[in-house]
Amino acid sequence: MQKAQLSAWKRMMSKFFSPKFRALTPYTPGEQPKDGQYVKLNTNESPFAPSQKAQAAAGEALATLQLYPDPECRALREKMAGILGVKPEQIIFTNGSDEVLNFAFMAFCDSDTPAAFADITYGFYPVFAQLNSVPYTTIPLAEDFSIDVEDYIGLQKTIFIANPNAPTGKVLDLAKIEQIAAANPDNVVVIDEAYIDFGGKSAVGLIEKYKNLLVTGTFSKSRSAAGARLGFGVADEALIADLNTIRYSTNPYNVNALTMALGLGILEDESYTKENCAAIIKNRSYTTERLRALGFEVIESAANFVFAKTDAIGGKALYERLKAKNILVRHFEKERIREYNRITIGTMEQMQQLLQAIEEILAEVTL
Amino acid sequence: MQKAQLSAWKRMMSKFFSPKFRALTPYTPGEQPKDGQYVKLNTNESPFAPSQKAQAAAGEALATLQLYPDPECRALREKMAGILGVKPEQIIFTNGSDEVLNFAFMAFCDSDTPAAFADITYGFYPVFAQLNSVPYTTIPLAEDFSIDVEDYIGLQKTIFIANPNAPTGKVLDLAKIEQIAAANPDNVVVIDEAYIDFGGKSAVGLIEKYKNLLVTGTFSKSRSAAGARLGFGVADEALIADLNTIRYSTNPYNVNALTMALGLGILEDESYTKENCAAIIKNRSYTTERLRALGFEVIESAANFVFAKTDAIGGKALYERLKAKNILVRHFEKERIREYNRITIGTMEQMQQLLQAIEEILAEVTL
Repeated sequence: MQKAQLSAWKRMMSKFFSPKFRALTPYTPGEQPKDGQYVKLNTNESPFAPSQKAQAAAGEALATLQLYPDPECRALREKMAGILGVKPEQIIFTNGSDEVLNFAFMAFCDSDTPAAFADITYGFYPVFAQLNSVPYTTIPLAEDFSIDVEDYIGLQKTIFIANPNAPTGKVLDLAKIEQIAAANPDNVVVIDEAYIDFGGKSAVGLIEKYKNLLVTGTFSKSRSAAGARLGFGVADEALIADLNTIRYSTNPYNVNALTMALGLGILEDESYTKENCAAIIKNRSYTTERLRALGFEVIESAANFVFAKTDAIGGKALYERLKAKNILVRHFEKERIREYNRITIGTMEQMQQLLQAIEEILAEVTL
Repeated sequence: MQKAQLSAWKRMMSKFFSPKFRALTPYTPGEQPKDGQYVKLNTNESPFAPSQKAQAAAGEALATLQLYPDPECRALREKMAGILGVKPEQIIFTNGSDEVLNFAFMAFCDSDTPAAFADITYGFYPVFAQLNSVPYTTIPLAEDFSIDVEDYIGLQKTIFIANPNAPTGKVLDLAKIEQIAAANPDNVVVIDEAYIDFGGKSAVGLIEKYKNLLVTGTFSKSRSAAGARLGFGVADEALIADLNTIRYSTNPYNVNALTMALGLGILEDESYTKENCAAIIKNRSYTTERLRALGFEVIESAANFVFAKTDAIGGKALYERLKAKNILVRHFEKERIREYNRITIGTMEQMQQLLQAIEEILAEVTL
């Protein structure tokens, strides 16, 4: 549906559209049906609502919405700084982490400083590169989808690494990230930690030592706030200053007052976030085991999703049959991964529904 | 305070910052003190909270914030289309109207198609131009700050006109906008209607006839939602398609779920918006008269602010003395307008406080 909408827009291009964007292929987000008929395991949302405390905090902001939000996001930066053990000046908040990633492509890449990222990773990186006329290189992951650090030594490029990676769920350990940051002192290394709270170790502790390291995060996954759009970047103050120059030249009020209040409420209720992450990790283990027992190859995941395939049925066919059973997972057409599906880890009940549907499908195809 | 913060960021620029942004001067938003000590008449916010209905609608969205918002903004576009008498495909919603304006600079300007706008107008236009490496021409307003349509005929440039204009409050009538749209068929003409509900006539009705016309609007002024960040663009479907290509390549979930619900609630309560606009218009007449009686030259305004000066005291001195009395107005250093202050029209009580403070200041300086 969204794909069809996007192609309609492309066909409808006006004669006024700048030639530099005419070949641009926008990012295709996962399907977002709003009719509630699906078990939605396709966009890595949390199955848990934001905490009551956070909801109440946002509710209080409703009555003063006629006023602009604080463009400096002071309260939120101070609270986050305390949690992460950094200074408020080392943090920037954005309208989802897509915005801080786009700002990083703008600020730290250009025709003289290309971007580099894995061939299999977050699909928005090549879109940001095209949008900003930034040349880029994709570095193939190993056969098992792991990163070979040797490929990232002295690249002379701005490096983007999703850790854990999407859609594979594979995590890179901190020693290797440090090695990459150290081996590229003249370039920014961006570690996109959208999924870090489900099993990885954050690189935030390295930003004092490596002035070229930018760590990005989001409230959309472990913090249950995909609908509120809140992302952030953590780095040396000079990098954050550059990103703020871009932000103040684009949209100084990029984070709205409701989201700001909700975010503060979420950070004041960290134990709720931790409990939810623990539940997801438990459900992930269970789902991984059960899928393997059903004959699936499941990559060991440190994220709130698993990436899985089976010889019994092709990736696209499984996606379609699950959709017919009102279960949405995410399938990518890309060659190296088209036999896989990325399955968000939800509640135990959702996982049971998924596994039962898969059992039925497998029974049908092996008749 | 914010100015100091911005200069600190500029000083702190990293060695990684792309040379193309090193000379970029970000936009300076009006002061946003959060301590509540000021009568805040400096950023053209509404003095009225969003309607109870709208607040309730946003409140209902709190419980499902773990899910991404609808990237197509369908419900909101459909509702708005009904109100404006256009098709949903002729509308795009953005994170404040700054975002749709930036998208327009991206989509419809480049080195071959420069931008053109008045010398005295919204201060963000030159920032957007610089940000996007777009050359631009400023067209001087007449002595009385009016637009001479002759200056806008066959420009071969993408034209940006704020109507009513800021910070002057002067309105351009629809016949003249039509003349400009007709005289620039090969270029996009953007009419920025942030303040249209306070006395101007919207150009939205012209978009069917002029495929080059983009009208932008905001919920930050007449609709009491500056804190929620909601802006929009209305134009021929092909222009909207171009803007969506940019949006889907930048941040498909640019409008968050709370703001979307609030926006829908606001549109379902249009009579509240109209009542508030009527109150502002009444208070504006009163304030204009009183200021004139005090010896001020006040430009006839069609916006929710007045632009005023007096021979009795300089623009900056008046701004500073009002601030010392806990009243914030907006002063600009720009040469042609530095004797003026832009004063937001608030409640009658706020206007009385302002006028009393001005009377005191005038008494002090004429001793």
